[in-house]
Amino acid sequence: MIDKYPDIFSKIADFLKTRDDFLVTPHFAPDGDAIASSLGMAEMLKAMGKRCLVSIEAGLPEKYDFLKTGVRIFNPKTEESENKFRNAIILDAGSFERIGLTKKLLDVEINILNIDHHLSNDRFGHVNYIDGEACSTSEILYYLARYLKLDFTKELADYLYMGIMTDTGCFRFSNTSGRALRAAAELVDLGVNPSYMADCIYFDAPKQYISVLAKCLSSLQYFSEGRIALMQYMEKEEIEDAEGLIDIAIGTRGVRAAAFIRPMEDGRFKVSLRARDRIDVRAIAEQYGGGGHAKAAGFRYRGTLTELQERIIRELSEKLDA
Amino acid sequence: MIDKYPDIFSKIADFLKTRDDFLVTPHFAPDGDAIASSLGMAEMLKAMGKRCLVSIEAGLPEKYDFLKTGVRIFNPKTEESENKFRNAIILDAGSFERIGLTKKLLDVEINILNIDHHLSNDRFGHVNYIDGEACSTSEILYYLARYLKLDFTKELADYLYMGIMTDTGCFRFSNTSGRALRAAAELVDLGVNPSYMADCIYFDAPKQYISVLAKCLSSLQYFSEGRIALMQYMEKEEIEDAEGLIDIAIGTRGVRAAAFIRPMEDGRFKVSLRARDRIDVRAIAEQYGGGGHAKAAGFRYRGTLTELQERIIRELSEKLDA
Repeated sequence: MIDKYPDIFSKIADFLKTRDDFLVTPHFAPDGDAIASSLGMAEMLKAMGKRCLVSIEAGLPEKYDFLKTGVRIFNPKTEESENKFRNAIILDAGSFERIGLTKKLLDVEINILNIDHHLSNDRFGHVNYIDGEACSTSEILYYLARYLKLDFTKELADYLYMGIMTDTGCFRFSNTSGRALRAAAELVDLGVNPSYMADCIYFDAPKQYISVLAKCLSSLQYFSEGRIALMQYMEKEEIEDAEGLIDIAIGTRGVRAAAFIRPMEDGRFKVSLRARDRIDVRAIAEQYGGGGHAKAAGFRYRGTLTELQERIIRELSEKLDA
Repeated sequence: MIDKYPDIFSKIADFLKTRDDFLVTPHFAPDGDAIASSLGMAEMLKAMGKRCLVSIEAGLPEKYDFLKTGVRIFNPKTEESENKFRNAIILDAGSFERIGLTKKLLDVEINILNIDHHLSNDRFGHVNYIDGEACSTSEILYYLARYLKLDFTKELADYLYMGIMTDTGCFRFSNTSGRALRAAAELVDLGVNPSYMADCIYFDAPKQYISVLAKCLSSLQYFSEGRIALMQYMEKEEIEDAEGLIDIAIGTRGVRAAAFIRPMEDGRFKVSLRARDRIDVRAIAEQYGGGGHAKAAGFRYRGTLTELQERIIRELSEKLDA
């Protein structure tokens, strides 16, 4: 439990209690938290005796099949509906545009409850609750369900745990807080099996991904006394979770900066950069018209591969020796 | 906090309060929890105004250098001491033999406090606390420190968090409980930086390991409609964390059983088997004189590689189709 709930919870409670029919939707290309918070909200509304439809552009991604959700999920890419909703709960979406095709389900007279944990959220709702301290939208819903004194079904506990677990990278990312861990603990007390959830999410890599991973790892080369790692994947297919791949390179002992090079359709190269410590790779990315953060940035490059490799190694070395 | 502390905590408190000088030691070849609970106990004794020496056979493993511990660690492999202790606190060690060379620091008249979370512990101490519900010995110490009303230094909180995190595989293994997550939450409130700790432990793979990983992943072959994964590493060097490698194979989507084959010095092959669901790989291992658990087993094989591969694939297929 937390000591004090945010004041706005009473306004959110009003929004939910004074209405009967809701559309619930996350952002398109939904991640674990977006899915979890939408399914969780549907369970919460059910517990409150309300009706709702969950809409997810392109439906539930295959990866989440294990949830065996009893909640019907509307796919606006393949389905049509005459029904227009006047009340929408939009979850984990930084802007209204991010709900994608689900927009077609909204009435012109629409009331929006907007709940998110990204501070960059542009507050597009009629009621907005943006909590940048929360690790995930699912964490917000956990405390909201507590505030509303709802009974937690096993499904509700599972969904919210999955959202917290996936958005913190299984309690590894910097958004892992005492509050997040406490919510996770209480959800386990409510019946979640944490190792089962972790197995479903983290021990389920597609064979294709493992094959790409093998090629990327085989390509690894080290420079500047092992402080720079260079990874390449030269096949012209789109790869899933490129972030996870370069994270292995930057997570290798002794490595302070890493680059991942892939070819693009138009003959250019796509470069992702990562840094540990105080090295700023955004500055390098910006020189080539790219951008990002100090520790994770990227750019596109036109030229030869050898020239690109030499430039990356030289510029990262200079940063490391500065 | 927990509702009720175990009764034996008062006996443990007596043991600690009525003595002044302690030897603190975990089992040899210590893992994260063994190290964390020993360093944690040293901090707890300091907070109680007591003196102690921490002894770890072979010293602090390099992997834990980041702890920058102020605690002096005695290495009985390389150091001698005239000092003999009459009070020992043995942590995370299933039997007395498991403290290894540290035995030479004990007086003949020795009083032992034995704290562990492995139910197989043989209760070799004068005071024994074996809590199989605890995810780790560090979790036990967390609740003990609370019971003793000790001030938590940042170091104490860091050590105990590390023990809980490493023994639960960063909250992924089946020993991840509400109690473990709650202790972790409270330790974060006390100042631990969970993402820093996770980075230090999980993003620090040696370059050599990454190279072995690349070769193992490249060797992966699938059989029986993708349900069986066969992994090989044919170089004759000892490999670190072979368990982690086969876990990737068994963690691939669709795979229900996996085998990992490595050559041995004497010309035989070492085979590790893994299973998901209800398949029992121990039964296969036992046929070849090996053993293990239903989901993780192993054996050694003399014969040709092709013959071994064929046998493994056939026997796993039969189990899958049974």
